[in-house]
Amino acid sequence: MEVGFLGLGIMGKAMSMNLLKHGFKVTVWNRTLSKCDELVEHGATVGETPAAVVKKCKYTIAMLSDPAAALAVVFEKDGVLDGICSGKGYIDMSTVDDETSTKISEAITAKGGSFLEAPVSGSKKPAEDGQLVILAAGEKALYEEAIPAFDIMGKKSFFLGPVGNGAKMKLVVNMVMGSMMNAFSEGLELADKSGLDPQTLLAVLDLGAISNPMFRLKGPTMIQGNYSPAFPLKHQQKDMRLALALGDENAVPMPVAAAANEAFKKARSMGLGDKDFSAVYETVRQFKPSSS
Amino acid sequence: MEVGFLGLGIMGKAMSMNLLKHGFKVTVWNRTLSKCDELVEHGATVGETPAAVVKKCKYTIAMLSDPAAALAVVFEKDGVLDGICSGKGYIDMSTVDDETSTKISEAITAKGGSFLEAPVSGSKKPAEDGQLVILAAGEKALYEEAIPAFDIMGKKSFFLGPVGNGAKMKLVVNMVMGSMMNAFSEGLELADKSGLDPQTLLAVLDLGAISNPMFRLKGPTMIQGNYSPAFPLKHQQKDMRLALALGDENAVPMPVAAAANEAFKKARSMGLGDKDFSAVYETVRQFKPSSS
Amino acid sequence: MEVGFLGLGIMGKAMSMNLLKHGFKVTVWNRTLSKCDELVEHGATVGETPAAVVKKCKYTIAMLSDPAAALAVVFEKDGVLDGICSGKGYIDMSTVDDETSTKISEAITAKGGSFLEAPVSGSKKPAEDGQLVILAAGEKALYEEAIPAFDIMGKKSFFLGPVGNGAKMKLVVNMVMGSMMNAFSEGLELADKSGLDPQTLLAVLDLGAISNPMFRLKGPTMIQGNYSPAFPLKHQQKDMRLALALGDENAVPMPVAAAANEAFKKARSMGLGDKDFSAVYETVRQFKPSSS
Amino acid sequence: MEVGFLGLGIMGKAMSMNLLKHGFKVTVWNRTLSKCDELVEHGATVGETPAAVVKKCKYTIAMLSDPAAALAVVFEKDGVLDGICSGKGYIDMSTVDDETSTKISEAITAKGGSFLEAPVSGSKKPAEDGQLVILAAGEKALYEEAIPAFDIMGKKSFFLGPVGNGAKMKLVVNMVMGSMMNAFSEGLELADKSGLDPQTLLAVLDLGAISNPMFRLKGPTMIQGNYSPAFPLKHQQKDMRLALALGDENAVPMPVAAAANEAFKKARSMGLGDKDFSAVYETVRQFKPSSS
Repeated sequence: MEVGFLGLGIMGKAMSMNLLKHGFKVTVWNRTLSKCDELVEHGATVGETPAAVVKKCKYTIAMLSDPAAALAVVFEKDGVLDGICSGKGYIDMSTVDDETSTKISEAITAKGGSFLEAPVSGSKKPAEDGQLVILAAGEKALYEEAIPAFDIMGKKSFFLGPVGNGAKMKLVVNMVMGSMMNAFSEGLELADKSGLDPQTLLAVLDLGAISNPMFRLKGPTMIQGNYSPAFPLKHQQKDMRLALALGDENAVPMPVAAAANEAFKKARSMGLGDKDFSAVYETVRQFKPSSS
Repeated sequence: MEVGFLGLGIMGKAMSMNLLKHGFKVTVWNRTLSKCDELVEHGATVGETPAAVVKKCKYTIAMLSDPAAALAVVFEKDGVLDGICSGKGYIDMSTVDDETSTKISEAITAKGGSFLEAPVSGSKKPAEDGQLVILAAGEKALYEEAIPAFDIMGKKSFFLGPVGNGAKMKLVVNMVMGSMMNAFSEGLELADKSGLDPQTLLAVLDLGAISNPMFRLKGPTMIQGNYSPAFPLKHQQKDMRLALALGDENAVPMPVAAAANEAFKKARSMGLGDKDFSAVYETVRQFKPSSS
Repeated sequence: MEVGFLGLGIMGKAMSMNLLKHGFKVTVWNRTLSKCDELVEHGATVGETPAAVVKKCKYTIAMLSDPAAALAVVFEKDGVLDGICSGKGYIDMSTVDDETSTKISEAITAKGGSFLEAPVSGSKKPAEDGQLVILAAGEKALYEEAIPAFDIMGKKSFFLGPVGNGAKMKLVVNMVMGSMMNAFSEGLELADKSGLDPQTLLAVLDLGAISNPMFRLKGPTMIQGNYSPAFPLKHQQKDMRLALALGDENAVPMPVAAAANEAFKKARSMGLGDKDFSAVYETVRQFKPSSS
Repeated sequence: MEVGFLGLGIMGKAMSMNLLKHGFKVTVWNRTLSKCDELVEHGATVGETPAAVVKKCKYTIAMLSDPAAALAVVFEKDGVLDGICSGKGYIDMSTVDDETSTKISEAITAKGGSFLEAPVSGSKKPAEDGQLVILAAGEKALYEEAIPAFDIMGKKSFFLGPVGNGAKMKLVVNMVMGSMMNAFSEGLELADKSGLDPQTLLAVLDLGAISNPMFRLKGPTMIQGNYSPAFPLKHQQKDMRLALALGDENAVPMPVAAAANEAFKKARSMGLGDKDFSAVYETVRQFKPSSS
């Protein structure tokens, strides 16, 4: 099986590495070429441009950091559009908004290619462990062709219908996650300032109706003030923004998500955009003693 | 083992029933006496008044609906204070605020009794299944005496230090839970209005980092608009209010909890106070078609 | 003095009427032509298309309902671009986002025309009374040329620098206004439910540090539940959304504006989008008696 | 005319000074006695205790910083209750919650005294200028007796009915004010970060529908970062908290006030509680350069 892979950030690198380790031949491309080195050591081939990768492979997967990057890799000179044609597929697994995804889909299909958006739920660790949840939408036949790759990168994939629905599902999930992270942060700080041991709070939470992997994973590092980025805060905030924009289109009031989004924006204004999204904890932490 | 039990609402009935079924002798009291009937069928004895129950038993457990009820049962004529004395223990498992708990603690200890507050995490189902999480604080010796009863009613108990800390821990947990329920509601509505299947959202959520028992349990009934009360909304809102008050005392900003609290208040203003707390979903659901 | 005028909604009609009444020759255009009739009775000429108006006049003013309409009138067939040329000016007084204004500016100047964005502060009544505040940005020479018209339509005009700054200033002002309207609504409802006379609240507010024309004007009609639209709620919500997007770009946390925006979205979901923006009051009003 | 005056903080000092300057004989008391000196220079007499002041005067006015202080001055040894009797009046002009006011009212009337709560709208400057708005409630006859004093201290007084209504009206007004201050802060920061001159924003705001004295007064000092306290932030936050509690009692959703309250709490956690309430501006100001 041969597949192209564009974008080797935290996520893309882990995903393409898994494909390599499970016997896929992978041709990779990354804007900063040096990021390809580790993949090459594990047997990957390097494509000079996105177009070159697409020309070489039956289908190509992309994992890019934001809508601008997802558009650039398709529309720029020697981009995906310059390589795509009938019989080839393009699978964009980046988290982008509906409009971006639609624009890419239209361009790909206008050239005769088939398109699937397939954003994922899960960050660095699940990407490394092949435990992502894959939210695919678009061309059903391409989805079926990609199932062997999806089965390696993820623990479960869904086909959600027309293009746009994968991106939307991802935004809904990340919106709920971002609000929960804020609620959790407020709880940790409230415990601490009220004379309770935050570690005991973690134990109590983990026994109850709201026990979940995120609290288990992030709680201990947050208490230490360790925010090394698995999912960068600025990307979480971008997803909150896009989810709120989707809610605005559909007249869905989302007061809790809106409050959470403002906290993430506050964190950005504090210079925490490149830290892990759990760094939103810093927005509620007291940073100097005060008797007021 | 003999124990008194005051308050046979949804929670108290399930908890005292478990004690009976596991070999405890239980003397029960409830303001509306007819609620004692089912317990009596299972072997409970009825006390005429709280004082009578306390006089009869080495220690007495109470499970009441709110701070006012918790105070009344202690301070009114023929209340707990009229029966308590040195060598007897009183364990209040109701969810109350710090001030209420302290007031009761002081009155009990002034009469020579020993006191434990022991609010629980978990509602009807965990109460029935003996799967509560018990957050005890106060007299350590009484905690140790009550461990056999706690082991039947709950899956885990914590001793958290001085009186007040049990109530506080409970409030922190319920505050996080209430915010999460709002985030979840917003997600369900956003999915629905954006053309996604809410059932698929539940499946996706359940595979990811924020998978938790509450979403699993409440999601399907919320989609049906079924809010039969396991944990009444007005009690959830009360806990949010008390948690926010605790945060106010300690200058902890809690913007997401505050937004969630306002949604619960909105639900109360819509007449949903006696429904399940998941009825907060109704505050974000569109209730008439609109093109605006 | 001759001037073109595109868009005869609530605002545009009042503004162009003022120009007519003060001796300007005005050539008008509106998508629904019948809306031109009243202006014609007062001496206006009708242009067949935006292009025709622009061709005829030294400069043309537009007042359109939203970014989509502002773009359409410029870019569509027989639109402004088909008439503009060197020596002609185009002044867009609509409230639009930065991106829209920039797009229009670039297209106009590419054809040799000069461009000014000049959104206004003030709704129906100030428009009728020539009491708008005009926030102009773009080509300084065109601003100076338009001053006689601005002096009729408004009580004060500002020149704010490069294109985009007029739109931004307008959004900032309307964002503050929208948040204030929510605070006011909450105050009216809180007074009413707490046993205070809302009319007395209006009197008290009007004597204090926060006394302002909006409370004076809107208070009495809001108490009556009269929301006949001076400034439609959906337009206010659009401005909140655009202001929040501007804040997002610049990492400005705006928790109060975000909460206000969600209330306006809630109002839209209740079908109140075409009512006056003061109808957001309905989102906090209790709509059924409840003991919860 | 002779009157007692208890509490010589920022407000009380200005108010009692006005009474002195307009020919009243005033007997003052303050917990820190040295604060009486300046009043004595202007002709005031000092009472040793609240009881001594009350015994000496037909009616006594109090202006204290919070509910705890208002209760202490009445109930402590040698407090107001030890001096009050039939024929004497007690007027509490402090801003307190409903419960506090009721408790004081009951104690005073139980001793045969007559009681009026009369909180004010307006801070340091209006207090100095005799331009307060006085919100009186309680004993109508005492209100009428105090009108000459009210006419000196304030520009307008209202009689609002039973005890509690003055406090409630004050809370509603201050709640609206606190939300407005947040909206204003967000607007100033949004302007600044978007490349607009905050001074021009002040000019634009002052010409429009939301023009008000508070923006005019506070805007320039806020831009300078000058927060010398006219109305301390911790007192504003207390009023927000009490207003929200009143809303909670009556199931009034107040999402914007709740968001504003959290911002004030955030400001407290930043050590700004003793600064002017306009220091809430600091919660949205970026405090370090960041590219995130």
